[in-house]
Amino acid sequence: MANIKEIARIAGVSVTTVSRVLNNHPYVSKDKRAAVLDTIDQLNYTRNMNAVHLITGRTGAVAVILPFINFFYFSIVMDGLAHEALLAQYRLILCQTNYSPEEELKVLEMLRNKEIDGVVIVSTALQPEVIEEYTAYGPIVTCQNSGERRFSSVYIEHYAAFRHGLQYLIGKGYRKIGYCEGRQNGSSSSIRQSAFREFLAENKLPFQEAWMIYDCMTEEHGAAAARSLLEMRERPDAVIVSGDHVAAGLIIESRKHGLRIPEDLAVMGFDNQPIGRLLEITTIDNQLYEMGASAFRIIHEQIRGDSTLPVYRKLAYRIIERSTV
Amino acid sequence: MANIKEIARIAGVSVTTVSRVLNNHPYVSKDKRAAVLDTIDQLNYTRNMNAVHLITGRTGAVAVILPFINFFYFSIVMDGLAHEALLAQYRLILCQTNYSPEEELKVLEMLRNKEIDGVVIVSTALQPEVIEEYTAYGPIVTCQNSGERRFSSVYIEHYAAFRHGLQYLIGKGYRKIGYCEGRQNGSSSSIRQSAFREFLAENKLPFQEAWMIYDCMTEEHGAAAARSLLEMRERPDAVIVSGDHVAAGLIIESRKHGLRIPEDLAVMGFDNQPIGRLLEITTIDNQLYEMGASAFRIIHEQIRGDSTLPVYRKLAYRIIERSTV
Repeated sequence: MANIKEIARIAGVSVTTVSRVLNNHPYVSKDKRAAVLDTIDQLNYTRNMNAVHLITGRTGAVAVILPFINFFYFSIVMDGLAHEALLAQYRLILCQTNYSPEEELKVLEMLRNKEIDGVVIVSTALQPEVIEEYTAYGPIVTCQNSGERRFSSVYIEHYAAFRHGLQYLIGKGYRKIGYCEGRQNGSSSSIRQSAFREFLAENKLPFQEAWMIYDCMTEEHGAAAARSLLEMRERPDAVIVSGDHVAAGLIIESRKHGLRIPEDLAVMGFDNQPIGRLLEITTIDNQLYEMGASAFRIIHEQIRGDSTLPVYRKLAYRIIERSTV
Repeated sequence: MANIKEIARIAGVSVTTVSRVLNNHPYVSKDKRAAVLDTIDQLNYTRNMNAVHLITGRTGAVAVILPFINFFYFSIVMDGLAHEALLAQYRLILCQTNYSPEEELKVLEMLRNKEIDGVVIVSTALQPEVIEEYTAYGPIVTCQNSGERRFSSVYIEHYAAFRHGLQYLIGKGYRKIGYCEGRQNGSSSSIRQSAFREFLAENKLPFQEAWMIYDCMTEEHGAAAARSLLEMRERPDAVIVSGDHVAAGLIIESRKHGLRIPEDLAVMGFDNQPIGRLLEITTIDNQLYEMGASAFRIIHEQIRGDSTLPVYRKLAYRIIERSTV
C-alpha cells in the first residue's frame, strides 16, 4: 500500500515535504508540490487488498453489531469502542441491525468468511447458542450478560443496578414510582422492566400501567412524558428514567409547569451524562463508555492471540447523589 | 452465505421456525430447535468472502472518514449517514483519522485496493487535489465545500450561515459579541473564525481575544465558558455558540449565577438540537443530519452507476427565533 515514505522515495523529496503537501502547508516549492502529486498519480497500480487479506489472514477490521447508532445508550458504548479502536489502529465496521436476527447472522457470516477479525455485539436478538456456533471462526465479545459461554462478555448488571436505584428511592420515602424507558423490547430495557415490576410487587408498592412510559429516547420524549404526568389525576411522586438526557427533558418541562423537583416529583436518571451533571440530576453511573472500551480491549487481545479463553467482565455501578431525589 | 432460508431448507423446518429459534421464541419444539442449531453447525464451510469480492467487484461497504466519532457535530452527520446506509443495506466502515493525512490516505487506498465501494469524507485535512487523484478508483463524496471537483460534495455554507447569525445579533442591538467554538483547527471552525473576525471588523464592532473561547465541545465546556465570562471585568452582551448542547451548558450555568438570558447575556446556538428546543435557544439550523443522509444517497447512486457526474449540493440554513436572543 502506498504510504508517505513510498511517495517521498519515488518523488525524490523528504517525508516532511510529502506531509506538507498533504497538509497544504505554505512552505513547499511549486516543483516539489507537483512532484508529490504526480507520484501519487503514478502509483496507479491496484494491488488488490482482498488478495492480501487472503494471504495474511488479518483484515484490521472489527465489526460492531448494534441495533441503532442514534440511540444514546449505544452511542456512548460506541464512543468507548471507537476510542480504543483508534489507539489500536483498527477499523470498526458499523452494522446497524435493527434487532433483525437475519441481519445479525450476516455479520457473523463475515467472521466465518474472514472479512473481519472479530465481532463486538453491543446488543442482540440472537440466542447465545447461535453466537457460540461462530466462535470457531474468530473472537466475539458481547456487551450483555450471556452467562459463561464460549465467547467473552463485558456487561452491566442492569437488573441489580435498577433495583438499587429503586431501593434508593424508597429509602428516601417515595412509594408511588413511575418509570420512563426507551425501546420497550430492547434486551436491557426488558431486564429493567422485570426489575421494576418485581421490585414493586415485593415491596407492595402501587403499580399503575399508566406510570410506565415507553419510547422515551430523546430530550423531547422526556418533555412529552412530563406533560403526560401532569395530565394524570393521580401521578407518581418519583420517576426513574432510563437516560439522563431524557430525565433532563422531563425536569425542564416539569419546572416550566411549576412543578418543584424533587418536592413535587423526584427524578432519578441513568448513565451519568454531562447534561445530568449540569442539571444536578441524581443518577446511576453504569459505565457505558467503559463497557465499549473494555469490549474492544478484550477483542483486540484475542485477535493478537495474547489470550484465547473467554473473559466475563462485570462492570460496577453506583448511585451519584445530587439534587433531584 | 448461509441465510435463514438455507438453514430452514437443510434443517427441514419452516423459515418461521428458524426465525423463532434465533429469536428465542417459546413455541418451538426441542427437536426442531436442535435441528436448527445442528444445521447452523453443519454449515461449517468457509466460502471466503474476499474471494467473492474479487469476482463481483462490489463489497457492500462504504468507508466514512471523520476525525472523531464523539464530537457532536460529526455524530449528527453520522446519524444521517447510518440511517440511509441501513435503508440501502450497506455497511459503514468508520475511520477515525484524528485529522492525520496519513490515516486519511490509508482509507483512500482502501478504495484503490477495492476493499470498499466508496468513501464519504465528513471532514478532512487533505487537499482537494489529493482527493481528486482517487476518484479514478470509485466514488467519493465530501461534506465540505471543495469547489467544483472531480468528486461530489454536499455542504453547508458555514461562512454565510455564521455571518447571518451575527447579522441577526447586531439587528437586535448587540455590539459586544463573544464566540464559543469547538476545536480551534477544525475545517468548518476555521471558516467560522474568519467569518467572525471579518464581520466584526467590517461592522466596527469591538474585538477581544478573551471573548473567543475555544475547545467548547460538551455541555460542561459550555458551563466552564459561562464561568469564564462571569469572571471578566468587561464581558460581551451576546455570545454565538457552536452547538446547542454547549449553549445549553452555558445558559444553565449562567442562570445559576443569576444572569438573565437574554437581558444580561444573549445566546445564539447552532445545529437545532433537541436540547435547544427544550431550553428555547435561538439557533441556526444547518441541517447536519440531512448532510449525512444526502452524502450517503449521492454515493449510493454513484456506486449503482445511476449517476456518474459529480454532484455539488449546497444545503440551506435558517435562523430559528426562540427566546435567548
